[in-house]
Amino acid sequence: MATLVLNAAELLTMAGPDGPRSGPDKDRLGLVRDGAVLIDQGRVLAAGSKDVVMANPAAKGAKMLSAEGKVLMPGFVDAHTHPVFAAPRLADFEARIAGQGYAEIAQRGGGILSTVNGVRGAKEADLAAGLRARAFDFAACGTTTIEAKSGYGLDLDNELKMLRAMRTVSSRGPVEIVATFLGAHAVPPEYKGRKSEFVARVCADMIPRVGEQKLASFVDVFCEKGWFDLGDLELVAEAGAKAGLGLKVHAEQLSRSGSIAPSLARGAATVDHLDCVEEADLPALAASKTVACLVPGSNYFLGKPYPPARRLLDAGAAVALATDFNPGTCPCWDMRMILSIACTQMKMSPAEALVAATINGAHAAGLGATHGSLEPGKTADLVCFDAEDHRELAYWFGAPKTRWTMKRGELVYKAS
Amino acid sequence: MATLVLNAAELLTMAGPDGPRSGPDKDRLGLVRDGAVLIDQGRVLAAGSKDVVMANPAAKGAKMLSAEGKVLMPGFVDAHTHPVFAAPRLADFEARIAGQGYAEIAQRGGGILSTVNGVRGAKEADLAAGLRARAFDFAACGTTTIEAKSGYGLDLDNELKMLRAMRTVSSRGPVEIVATFLGAHAVPPEYKGRKSEFVARVCADMIPRVGEQKLASFVDVFCEKGWFDLGDLELVAEAGAKAGLGLKVHAEQLSRSGSIAPSLARGAATVDHLDCVEEADLPALAASKTVACLVPGSNYFLGKPYPPARRLLDAGAAVALATDFNPGTCPCWDMRMILSIACTQMKMSPAEALVAATINGAHAAGLGATHGSLEPGKTADLVCFDAEDHRELAYWFGAPKTRWTMKRGELVYKAS
Repeated sequence: MATLVLNAAELLTMAGPDGPRSGPDKDRLGLVRDGAVLIDQGRVLAAGSKDVVMANPAAKGAKMLSAEGKVLMPGFVDAHTHPVFAAPRLADFEARIAGQGYAEIAQRGGGILSTVNGVRGAKEADLAAGLRARAFDFAACGTTTIEAKSGYGLDLDNELKMLRAMRTVSSRGPVEIVATFLGAHAVPPEYKGRKSEFVARVCADMIPRVGEQKLASFVDVFCEKGWFDLGDLELVAEAGAKAGLGLKVHAEQLSRSGSIAPSLARGAATVDHLDCVEEADLPALAASKTVACLVPGSNYFLGKPYPPARRLLDAGAAVALATDFNPGTCPCWDMRMILSIACTQMKMSPAEALVAATINGAHAAGLGATHGSLEPGKTADLVCFDAEDHRELAYWFGAPKTRWTMKRGELVYKAS
Repeated sequence: MATLVLNAAELLTMAGPDGPRSGPDKDRLGLVRDGAVLIDQGRVLAAGSKDVVMANPAAKGAKMLSAEGKVLMPGFVDAHTHPVFAAPRLADFEARIAGQGYAEIAQRGGGILSTVNGVRGAKEADLAAGLRARAFDFAACGTTTIEAKSGYGLDLDNELKMLRAMRTVSSRGPVEIVATFLGAHAVPPEYKGRKSEFVARVCADMIPRVGEQKLASFVDVFCEKGWFDLGDLELVAEAGAKAGLGLKVHAEQLSRSGSIAPSLARGAATVDHLDCVEEADLPALAASKTVACLVPGSNYFLGKPYPPARRLLDAGAAVALATDFNPGTCPCWDMRMILSIACTQMKMSPAEALVAATINGAHAAGLGATHGSLEPGKTADLVCFDAEDHRELAYWFGAPKTRWTMKRGELVYKAS
């Protein structure tokens, strides 16, 4: 039986041409007043004005779901998260407030390696249970698909364990998980001072195995001074391509390393962070199909300056917004919070931010053809917000606004 | 029948000496592990370790409520809000992102006067209904008491209408409202260019009437270059004192006007904002009973630098945190969001922020003797959070964490 969602005050279809939306806002929300969406077998049959949708033969006898007076739109696609971990990093949080730097925090056992230790010590079932609980948290905030990175295992067994936990949770819902293998996230203690050997293991042992077992869609590399360099980027990209995996690159966050050009040359789906991107990088990025995936929640949490979203958009780049949800630098899974930060701190318009968080997020996750907009044939991932105007989604901040969330045509969250 | 809340992973009693807590954190949370609270007739009978509380004779046969594995603490006291308005200011929000300044926004009909027009055109019952809906939103975020300012009426009838709406809502719950008369919020259009005449009306007509009808506990004045000056502050304070009302002062937000000294001389309960407070102001403020009420949510929303919380605390001042909830500069009623901003942007410790949001908020609202901590005889205003450690309340941001909220011993919110 089909489902008919109707009477939305504002339906945002995000309908448009193939490919990510680039450049500044030009009214790309596909906004329809008194909108309706017809759904069957987990897919969108029709979306648009109520009259047109009601004329579809399948609307007859469909189950009705009211969105009266509400904003109805595609579920958020959060294209950059690290949601598989054992525990929050509260001591790091307090230490950073008290003025301690990265080195001090690492020295007393904090930092990313504390999360690595937590993941290595955890059973796969416990990681999956934790991830599943977080998946419901994502759904409650209107997110229906996340890209999730490994990279807290840092050896073959523990990386595969993380990726299997993602596959388990993705198969059961309530959100879909696109997995990224991030073996080159940090050099693990047992390879201290032997970075090249570690990268060789990542490329020779781990990436091929991840590819064989079809446990990930992408490889990623933490390309940053003191972590991994442009040579490592080439090696990881090469190994990933051989294994049939797409490329994502942690690029230009803490300092400029020149990673944009090689990422574009390798056809990266996304370059992520971009705090230190320079003017010279912009024309090539704008001319490419690579999405600039911005994660300003981590800037907020660390109290640091924000990436230059306005310059990227004005140069013609395609921008996606994501949470970077992780226990060290962004304990936030709420895409509405990211919309708020994008608008208030980076001066993106509410419409630009909404596009970046849906259709462009879908392209960033490699799902642009099937997710991120409400068009016939696409996955029926919808969220209904307690708001009459889409600008409210970025305006009210902090408190929840989700009325319900639907994944593949099934309700997975409903506010009380 | 008494109620016994028990097994809290962490109970924060905030118990301590009379008066607001001043200076930097010195472990003032009154943290008890495996804590319990015994409640009767809307008041706290006992709060502390489970063993001690269970030994109270009234615990026998009490209704049990589990807080197992959770953080249990006093409800937030949000000591600075403007929650009576007709509509959000979405056009202003978009215009500000696009780079328009205050003057431009005001010129095309936005700014505070658009909210004044909305309130003047609204029926009292509609304002009360809107406020009551927002009161439930506050409760859902763990806030049990708010200070609420008038100041969108700007004439006798409309100011009284706002204050009556507050009284109506406060009497029915779910949150208690401490009303502040803010007639000197802006000069209304009909007094354009005649600020002194307007202040004379505020002092001669409005304040006495508000006092007679016992519609407010405080007067407040928007002391800021281009709005109201130190002479106006004296007149409003004087009229307020005559009418039996306490004093609050909007101080040193946009530029330094020197309002701290006269506010302290007049025994102000709070000076609010303080973005431009100077070193010279700090010793007298620290030596006084006046609370520095910081509202960094508005700085966040406007993308401006934050008030110097660290300098205020280190100088020995008592700091409260509040939302400044209003449709123009802070559309946020979620005190957990304010904790997050306080910790990540102003480098307050989680413990300092929690004290500022409870017991110091209570003192800021003139309710320090009865609210803001869980001590025998105090109002049983409690919130239970889905967190095991109090630091989590400032760490996770965006998404909700409230398990339940209790006002005067009655559950007023429960998560689904």
